[in-house]
Amino acid sequence: MKHIPVIVLGATGAVGQRFVQLLENHPWFEVVGLTGSDRSIGQRYTDACRWVLSGPMPDYARDIVVTPTEPGVEAALAFSALPADTARQVEPLFAAAGYGVCSNASAFRMEPDVPLLIPEVNPDHIRLIETQRVRRGWQGFIATNPNCTATGLVMALKPLHDTFGVKRVLAVSLQAISGAGYPGVASLDIVDNVIPYIGGEEDKVETEPLKLLGQLNGDGVRFAEFAISAHTNRVAVIDGHIVCASVELETNPGVEDVERALADFRTPDPVAGLPSTPERPIVVRREPDRPQPRRDRDEGHGMTAVVGRVRPCSLLGIKFVVLSHNTIRGAAGGSLLNAELLAAQGYLNSVRVELIRSTVTVEYCA
Amino acid sequence: MKHIPVIVLGATGAVGQRFVQLLENHPWFEVVGLTGSDRSIGQRYTDACRWVLSGPMPDYARDIVVTPTEPGVEAALAFSALPADTARQVEPLFAAAGYGVCSNASAFRMEPDVPLLIPEVNPDHIRLIETQRVRRGWQGFIATNPNCTATGLVMALKPLHDTFGVKRVLAVSLQAISGAGYPGVASLDIVDNVIPYIGGEEDKVETEPLKLLGQLNGDGVRFAEFAISAHTNRVAVIDGHIVCASVELETNPGVEDVERALADFRTPDPVAGLPSTPERPIVVRREPDRPQPRRDRDEGHGMTAVVGRVRPCSLLGIKFVVLSHNTIRGAAGGSLLNAELLAAQGYLNSVRVELIRSTVTVEYCA
Amino acid sequence: MKHIPVIVLGATGAVGQRFVQLLENHPWFEVVGLTGSDRSIGQRYTDACRWVLSGPMPDYARDIVVTPTEPGVEAALAFSALPADTARQVEPLFAAAGYGVCSNASAFRMEPDVPLLIPEVNPDHIRLIETQRVRRGWQGFIATNPNCTATGLVMALKPLHDTFGVKRVLAVSLQAISGAGYPGVASLDIVDNVIPYIGGEEDKVETEPLKLLGQLNGDGVRFAEFAISAHTNRVAVIDGHIVCASVELETNPGVEDVERALADFRTPDPVAGLPSTPERPIVVRREPDRPQPRRDRDEGHGMTAVVGRVRPCSLLGIKFVVLSHNTIRGAAGGSLLNAELLAAQGYLNSVRVELIRSTVTVEYCA
Amino acid sequence: MKHIPVIVLGATGAVGQRFVQLLENHPWFEVVGLTGSDRSIGQRYTDACRWVLSGPMPDYARDIVVTPTEPGVEAALAFSALPADTARQVEPLFAAAGYGVCSNASAFRMEPDVPLLIPEVNPDHIRLIETQRVRRGWQGFIATNPNCTATGLVMALKPLHDTFGVKRVLAVSLQAISGAGYPGVASLDIVDNVIPYIGGEEDKVETEPLKLLGQLNGDGVRFAEFAISAHTNRVAVIDGHIVCASVELETNPGVEDVERALADFRTPDPVAGLPSTPERPIVVRREPDRPQPRRDRDEGHGMTAVVGRVRPCSLLGIKFVVLSHNTIRGAAGGSLLNAELLAAQGYLNSVRVELIRSTVTVEYCA
Repeated sequence: MKHIPVIVLGATGAVGQRFVQLLENHPWFEVVGLTGSDRSIGQRYTDACRWVLSGPMPDYARDIVVTPTEPGVEAALAFSALPADTARQVEPLFAAAGYGVCSNASAFRMEPDVPLLIPEVNPDHIRLIETQRVRRGWQGFIATNPNCTATGLVMALKPLHDTFGVKRVLAVSLQAISGAGYPGVASLDIVDNVIPYIGGEEDKVETEPLKLLGQLNGDGVRFAEFAISAHTNRVAVIDGHIVCASVELETNPGVEDVERALADFRTPDPVAGLPSTPERPIVVRREPDRPQPRRDRDEGHGMTAVVGRVRPCSLLGIKFVVLSHNTIRGAAGGSLLNAELLAAQGYLNSVRVELIRSTVTVEYCA
Repeated sequence: MKHIPVIVLGATGAVGQRFVQLLENHPWFEVVGLTGSDRSIGQRYTDACRWVLSGPMPDYARDIVVTPTEPGVEAALAFSALPADTARQVEPLFAAAGYGVCSNASAFRMEPDVPLLIPEVNPDHIRLIETQRVRRGWQGFIATNPNCTATGLVMALKPLHDTFGVKRVLAVSLQAISGAGYPGVASLDIVDNVIPYIGGEEDKVETEPLKLLGQLNGDGVRFAEFAISAHTNRVAVIDGHIVCASVELETNPGVEDVERALADFRTPDPVAGLPSTPERPIVVRREPDRPQPRRDRDEGHGMTAVVGRVRPCSLLGIKFVVLSHNTIRGAAGGSLLNAELLAAQGYLNSVRVELIRSTVTVEYCA
Repeated sequence: MKHIPVIVLGATGAVGQRFVQLLENHPWFEVVGLTGSDRSIGQRYTDACRWVLSGPMPDYARDIVVTPTEPGVEAALAFSALPADTARQVEPLFAAAGYGVCSNASAFRMEPDVPLLIPEVNPDHIRLIETQRVRRGWQGFIATNPNCTATGLVMALKPLHDTFGVKRVLAVSLQAISGAGYPGVASLDIVDNVIPYIGGEEDKVETEPLKLLGQLNGDGVRFAEFAISAHTNRVAVIDGHIVCASVELETNPGVEDVERALADFRTPDPVAGLPSTPERPIVVRREPDRPQPRRDRDEGHGMTAVVGRVRPCSLLGIKFVVLSHNTIRGAAGGSLLNAELLAAQGYLNSVRVELIRSTVTVEYCA
Repeated sequence: MKHIPVIVLGATGAVGQRFVQLLENHPWFEVVGLTGSDRSIGQRYTDACRWVLSGPMPDYARDIVVTPTEPGVEAALAFSALPADTARQVEPLFAAAGYGVCSNASAFRMEPDVPLLIPEVNPDHIRLIETQRVRRGWQGFIATNPNCTATGLVMALKPLHDTFGVKRVLAVSLQAISGAGYPGVASLDIVDNVIPYIGGEEDKVETEPLKLLGQLNGDGVRFAEFAISAHTNRVAVIDGHIVCASVELETNPGVEDVERALADFRTPDPVAGLPSTPERPIVVRREPDRPQPRRDRDEGHGMTAVVGRVRPCSLLGIKFVVLSHNTIRGAAGGSLLNAELLAAQGYLNSVRVELIRSTVTVEYCA
C-alpha cells in the first residue's frame, strides 16, 4: 500500500504545516498538492509559507506550487487544515469530487452522517460514511477528528466508560498556544499571564465526547448520555494540552481499578498495525507531578495520551490529569491516523486513484 | 493610632519581603525588628536579604540588623512569614511572650482556638482569641490568614454562601510561581510547562474554606458543611492565582443573581475603614476573557478579588473564574489586614506597648 | 498652566493606550479627542479599543468618541502614536493646522528641521522648530522622540560624551515584546525563544544617537561624529529594553570615573521642574546582576535609565548595561516629556488655544 | 569497536542526565557505572535522580546503583559532569587510576597540558595528552570541552580565523536556563526578565577561544593572539545559546566571502566518521530572522552550530549571530564527541580495558 496521492488543504497555516511535517516519509501517502489562500497561490511552498514549527521544512514540500483550495489536483485523499468557515464551503466540494476528506476542522464534526473519529476509541463509526455517501450523493467522504482538548479527555474516558460507565465529567483545560494557530495568541496576552477563555472551545469539549463515546446505531450515532462541564484556559506552553478531570463513574471504582483500566486499555485490532498508531494509546504515570506538557507531550511520538495523578475526588469520585499533544494527536496526527484507518478499510476511492496514477498499487481494494 | 511597633519573622524570604514592602509608610505600624535564619543574623537587612520583588528595598529596612527568631525585640505585633515547621515551634513562644502574632504560616490555621481570618468574610472569628488566651495561658495570641488559593475562592464564595447556600464546589487553580517563595520553582520546571501538582495545596483548599465560612459557636467554629474538591496547578505567571470554580448552590440561582450577589458584596463595618481594606472586596468583570493575572492582579492594590465568566455549569449550576493576588491578598496583605482589624478591635497588648515605647498613643484602648 | 487641550492620534494601539494612561490626571494636559482607524471611528473609546495594558482603562477616556485622524478637534497639541507610514502623511496636516505634534513615530525623526528630543539630553534642539516653521510655513510643528532602544542608550552616552568624548559604540539590545505593539510578536515566536532580528531597528539605533548628541548649529544639527554598530534582539519580556554597550571614549577613563559621570548626570534647568521629569535621569546600580527589566523598569515611574555592570572592555575600553522602559521613557512618556518642555518654553500655539477654549489660561505666553 | 565500558561522574545533575541520555544506544560505549553525591549513593538511578530532561529516563540506566565519585568501577572512560570544585579534586584521581576522563568541567580546561577540544576545530590538540601523561605520571588522562558559549562562538570563528585571520571579537550572549543546571535559575528571576550576568562566564568566553584556536607547539599550545570582549546574559529559553558577534578580520572580507567560508567549513578527516559528528559542523541560514533557539537548536541532532545574519559591522567589519545547543554541543555532546575521537585515535587505556572486561574487543589498539 504505497504512493497513495494526497493533498493538504490550507497547507501554509500552523496545522497545515504539521500535516506537511508528519507526511514526510510516510510509508503510504505521498503529497502531490498543497493549497493555500489567494495570496500564496502560484508561489512555491517555501516562498508562500512562513514555517513556524521546530526543525526545517521538509525538502519534499519546498518546490510544490501552492494551488487554490478547490478540486483539481488528482489525489485520493485531502487532509483539511482549513478554518471552520472555509471548511464548511469547500470540503463538500472535495467530497463530491471523489476525495476522501480527513478534516481537522470543526465544521462537520457534529453532522449526523459524518464520522467524528479517534481510531482507538470508535473505529466502527467510519461506517457512517456509507450513509453519508447515500444521503449526499458523494463519491468521496468527509471524516473528522475531534477538538484538540476533547481528544485527550476522550482517550482517557474511553476505558473508564467501557469498564465503569461515565456519569458526569468536570474538565478544566490548560491549553498550549499552538492550539490557536499562527500568529494566534499575541505574546502580550500570554507572557506572565493566563487567558481563562477560548472562544467556542467549551462547547466543543462538552459535546464532542458524547458523539465519540456514542454507539453506532443503524445509520447514526446514539450519543453517550452523560454531562460534561468544561472550563478552558490558555497558558504559556508551546505544545501539549492538560485537562484536569473529575469524573463520576456508575460503579464507584477505586483509584487502583481506574489506574488499571487506563493502563490496560489496548488499541483495537484494525487500528493496531497502522503506521501512526502509537505503541500504547494511554500511558499512566505514577509520579505525583506528572504529566507535564514539555516533558510528556512527545510520548508515543505525540500520539499517546499521558494520564497521571489518579486520586479520589470528594465530589465526583475520581480525579486525574490527562495530557495530549494538541497539534499531533489533537490535530494533524489525529487526522492522519484517521486517514490510515480509512485507507486500510478500503474507504479511499480506488477507481479514482487508478485513473490518476497508473503506478499506484491499491492493495486495499483487492 | 500611630507607631505601633511591629516585627517581621522570617523577613528575608519572599513573603517576608512582601511584609517589609507593604509596611513601608504604614499609618499605624512601625517596623522595629526583622528576624532571619542563622546565616543572616547580625547582618544589616540590605546585606542579609536578596531582594526579589520589583521595585527597590524600602529605605527604612536597609539598616535594620537581622536578629534571631525569638522573642526579645520589644513590639506589640509579630508578622510571621515563617515556614510551617518553624512557625509551629516559634509562634507559640511569641504569643506566650505577649506578642500578637499575625501569621501567614499554615501551622496553626486549623487549630480550634486559632482564628483563620479574612476580615471581609469572618471578622467575628477574632473572638476565638479569648478562648485561645484562656486555654493556652497566653498574653498575646496567634491569628492566621488562609492559604493563598483558598483566599480568593472564599472571597467569591462568601456572598454566594450567605445568599444562596453553597452545597458543593469544584475548584481548579492555575497558580503563580511567587506562591512557592524564592528560589522556589526552578525555571526549567515551568518555562514552556505546567506542573499539575503543588505539595499539600489541595488539602488546604479543600478544608480551610469550611472553617472560614463556618459559624462562631461559643468557644469554637462550627465548620460550613459542604464538599470541596480541588486540583492545583503551577503555571508560568509571576503573581496572581486563578481559580476555575464550579459551584452547586442550594437555591439554584441564575447567572444574573449570582453576579449581583458578588457585585453587591460589601465590606462589613468594623473592617471598612482600615488602612489596607480595598474599596471593594470583589470586582465583577463582564468581558468574556477576564480576569487575567497580569492585567487584574493589582485591582484594589492587590487586595480585591476579581471574578469573571459567571455562567451556567451543566453539572453544578454555576461556574466562574476568580483571581486574587497571591502574595498580597493571599499572604502578606491578608496578614496585614488581619493585624489592622485586631489592632482596631483592641486585641493588641497595649500594656506591653506602653511599656516599651512611651511615645506610643494607644487610642484603641481608650 | 492648566487645561491645555490635547488629542491622541492612533489612540487605540498599544502606544496610543500608553498615552491615554499617562495623560490621566496630568496637571496641564486634558485629553479632548482620540483618533483611530476607520473601523473604530464613531465608537466610544471603550468599545473601539481592546485595552492591553495592566490596570483598567482610565475612566476619563471611556466615553470619548473616536474620530478620524485628521485636523478638526480643537486642541493645542497632538500626541502621535501613529505607524510611520500614516504619520508621514498625516502629521504635516496637523502641524500645518496649528497643532504642536509630539510624535513617537519614526517618520520625521531624521528630517534636518525636526527636533529629535530627549529633554535631559538635548533640550536646546527645540529651537529647530523655528526653522521648521519658516521653511514649511507651519503654524504648528512636529517634534519627535527617538526609537525606544536608542533612548536608553543615548541617556547613558550623554554624560560620557560630555565628559570623555565618545569614539565608538557597540550596542546589543534585548528588547521587550511591547515594543512591537499589539498584537505584535506572536507568542509562538517568543516563548522559549529569541528572535535575533527586528526590522529597521538596527539602522535607527545606529543613526538617531548621532543626531541626539549632535550640536545645534545655526538652523541645523551637526551630528556627533562617532560610529555605532547595533545588534537588536527580541526576548520574552513584557516591558523594558536592555542594551549591552561597549564604548570607546576619547580619554580612556577608568570604571570609577565612568560610574561617577553617570551618577552625577543632572537634568538641565528648563527640564528639571516638568511634571514627567524623573527625580534622576540615570540611576547607577552596583550589584553584579542589575539592571533587570522586571525589577528595574519602573524606576522613576519608568522615566529613569538604569545603568549597571560598568566594567572594563578589553576591546573598546568600557562596557555596561543600560535598561529603560520602552513604552514609557522610550515612547509615550518620552513624547509627553517633550510636550511638557515645549509647553513650558512657549512653543504651543497659544492663540489657537485661546480661540478654542476661553477658559484656558496660558501662563507660558506671558 | 563496541562495548567500551564507561562511567558518568555526577550523573544525577542536569548535564549528567544529558550524558546518560546521549549514551543510550551508543554504538561504542556502554555505561557500566553512574556516580553521584553522598545522598544518592546506594540508590538505583531511577530513585536517586530527579529526571529533568524531556522524554523518559533511558531504561538501561534505571537500575544502575549510584556509587561514590571515586575510582573503582572498572571502565576505560569517565565522562565528568562534576561541578568545577569537585572536578578539581576528583578528576586527577581517575586519570591517575587509568581512566580517560572526558570532562565538561572548567577545572582543568586552561591547564597547559590538558587538551581543550572541539574535534572539528583542533583535533590535533589531543597530543597534549602525551605531555600530560609524562608530566603527571598518569596512565589515563583528562581532556576537556569548552564552556557552552565559547563552543558555538569558536565553531564560527574557526573558518574565519583560518581564512581571514581574526583580530578582535565582541561577543554578546543570550543564554538558555539549562546552562545553569537544575534547579539552577529560579523562575522568579527569569520569567518576564533578563539577568544580564552569569558568574565567571565572561572570563571563560574571553579566554577559552584563544586556546582552542591556538597552535600546537611542541608540548604546549601557543594561544591565538586576538582580543575578545564578552557580555553574557541569561534569558527565558530552555536550550540553545545565541551569540551576537562583531568580528574584525585581518583581510577585511565581504559578507559573501564570510558566508562562503562558514558554509564551506568541513569536518577534518579523523573526525568525519565518528558516531556523534554532525553532517555539517556549521549551517548558514540566510533568512533575516534566524537562527532562533527553539527552531534551530536541534540542527544536526544538537551538534551543529547555526550561523545567520552575516552582515557588515560599521565598527569591526563583520557581524553575525551564532546559535548552538548548550547542553548537547556545548556540554555532554561535546564531551562525547571528544571521547569518540580519543577512542578512535587509540588514547583509551586498552590494557585496562582488556583486564576489566575480557569480552571487549579493542580494535583501535590493533
